[in-house]
Amino acid sequence: MASKILYNGDRNVAGKWIPELNRAIAAKGVDAEIVTTSTEPEAIKYIVHSPRGDVSDFSPFTGLVAVFGLWAGVEEIVGNPTLKVPLSKMVDSSLTEGMVEYVVAHVLRIHLGTDFHVLNQDGVWRRDQTLPPFLARQRTVLILGLGALGTACLKALSILNFQVSGWSRTPKTIDGASTYSGADGLDRALARADFVVLLLPSTADTRNVLDSRRFALMKKGASIINPGRGTLIEDAALLDSLDNGRLASATLDVFWEEPLPPSHRYWSHPKVTVTPHIASETRPETASLSIAENVRRAESGEELLHLVDRIRGY
Amino acid sequence: MASKILYNGDRNVAGKWIPELNRAIAAKGVDAEIVTTSTEPEAIKYIVHSPRGDVSDFSPFTGLVAVFGLWAGVEEIVGNPTLKVPLSKMVDSSLTEGMVEYVVAHVLRIHLGTDFHVLNQDGVWRRDQTLPPFLARQRTVLILGLGALGTACLKALSILNFQVSGWSRTPKTIDGASTYSGADGLDRALARADFVVLLLPSTADTRNVLDSRRFALMKKGASIINPGRGTLIEDAALLDSLDNGRLASATLDVFWEEPLPPSHRYWSHPKVTVTPHIASETRPETASLSIAENVRRAESGEELLHLVDRIRGY
Repeated sequence: MASKILYNGDRNVAGKWIPELNRAIAAKGVDAEIVTTSTEPEAIKYIVHSPRGDVSDFSPFTGLVAVFGLWAGVEEIVGNPTLKVPLSKMVDSSLTEGMVEYVVAHVLRIHLGTDFHVLNQDGVWRRDQTLPPFLARQRTVLILGLGALGTACLKALSILNFQVSGWSRTPKTIDGASTYSGADGLDRALARADFVVLLLPSTADTRNVLDSRRFALMKKGASIINPGRGTLIEDAALLDSLDNGRLASATLDVFWEEPLPPSHRYWSHPKVTVTPHIASETRPETASLSIAENVRRAESGEELLHLVDRIRGY
Repeated sequence: MASKILYNGDRNVAGKWIPELNRAIAAKGVDAEIVTTSTEPEAIKYIVHSPRGDVSDFSPFTGLVAVFGLWAGVEEIVGNPTLKVPLSKMVDSSLTEGMVEYVVAHVLRIHLGTDFHVLNQDGVWRRDQTLPPFLARQRTVLILGLGALGTACLKALSILNFQVSGWSRTPKTIDGASTYSGADGLDRALARADFVVLLLPSTADTRNVLDSRRFALMKKGASIINPGRGTLIEDAALLDSLDNGRLASATLDVFWEEPLPPSHRYWSHPKVTVTPHIASETRPETASLSIAENVRRAESGEELLHLVDRIRGY
């Protein structure tokens, strides 16, 4: 009998996901089928999950073997006390590619000052004031978080000649990059960066990781780009650092509260660019391949990929 | 006796160039010196030249061996009838790097639609309308001109997953790219591109290479980026193609007349972004190395690098 996989993602996009999931699972030669309702929860072996799904209590799923997250970020499920089985997070080639595109686009946008031209199509030819003063090779980008997304962004920026550095909780080595770890390492890395890109998971440890003390350590004129999670930044401290001239700009895609409230100072601050959580998205065509591979592994007793460590929280 | 090299570039930046040129020439072990006046023109062996220099009649320089251009574009000197010696154009690593940064920044800017966010920081969270619909791998960039600049831009865009194609006057092959040549090849290449980047030299053959017939061949919704030369584009035809909906946008750094006159329609057109000829610039530190190598070659009777073909004009 085919193993039952419950689709517990956003119902509005189920029509896009389910055919791709079925196609990917069939391509793996696995005897499994996607179902969309849990009328017999004890018959469900796997759950494909996002926080937009209906199910948040896993207790009735007594035959559950694993939960496959549809999102790269798992902060809304990792602490769920009813979840007793292995949980994987999404590592999707399209999500990674989209994130690299966003990060490279915005690092270059700030590096070259393109906003000035986009915002001033006023007939005044300002060549001398607007020649980019630096080449990429003269600027350092620091990536906070060296998972799949951070590592891919770091490599793309390195190929474009930026000096690249990375920080992760535990030590990592990447060819051609300066890497840092631990709290001291973060302070040292921040002090040397012209651009700081936040791609850390949201955990208790990373909450407000950029606070007033750390902003004060940064180079004068540095810029931050946050396509990671809103909780990484202490908003009041960031606004202070922009107002007091320490930071030159902030490009923010994620926020403590989303949608970002219309009255939030970020929207009107001249040094802040808000994008509405669009940096990258998981795409069913490619993400289904990632889930199907984990279904195959689970069915054949192999170790799952991209498992979440429930203690560290990502 | 040291060979005399006349600096005939912009006098306003001579103070930046001359120390770098002397340093680079000394590093090559060549016995030559830079002079800034031509009171004894017959004693000058080489001229470092840009159209901003005072000298445009080379007749008095009876001992001249070669002219080393400071600019990548040589359209203002190539037809000079008083120039009877070999002419080299500038190939400068910094110029190339800066051009790659500009081209990648603006291709990504248009690909991701970042202007929408930069221009609309209005408190409205428009996630669903502004998610980028395509990944780079689903979009084709065509580079017109496969010299040092075009080839470097093509390779960088390829690494970012864009489908890349290139057109050159004579056939060229580049790994991972579709290449086209000749007039028919240009028509075919244009019909398949989502982004067209112009990096051709300005010659009689390339004048108005993008005219109304060629704009009409392009994909609906395509965008052009011109950091090459203003003469490559028939301005009225471009404006028509933007107005009739064939083209989605144009980002223009160079123009038939520079500075672009304040009243030019490009400044006010909602689909045009003007930048004031800032895409990239030659930098004395690196460009002097390129000139010093040619001085060394000339002094030792070796073939010069980056020679201009006076007939084809670049």
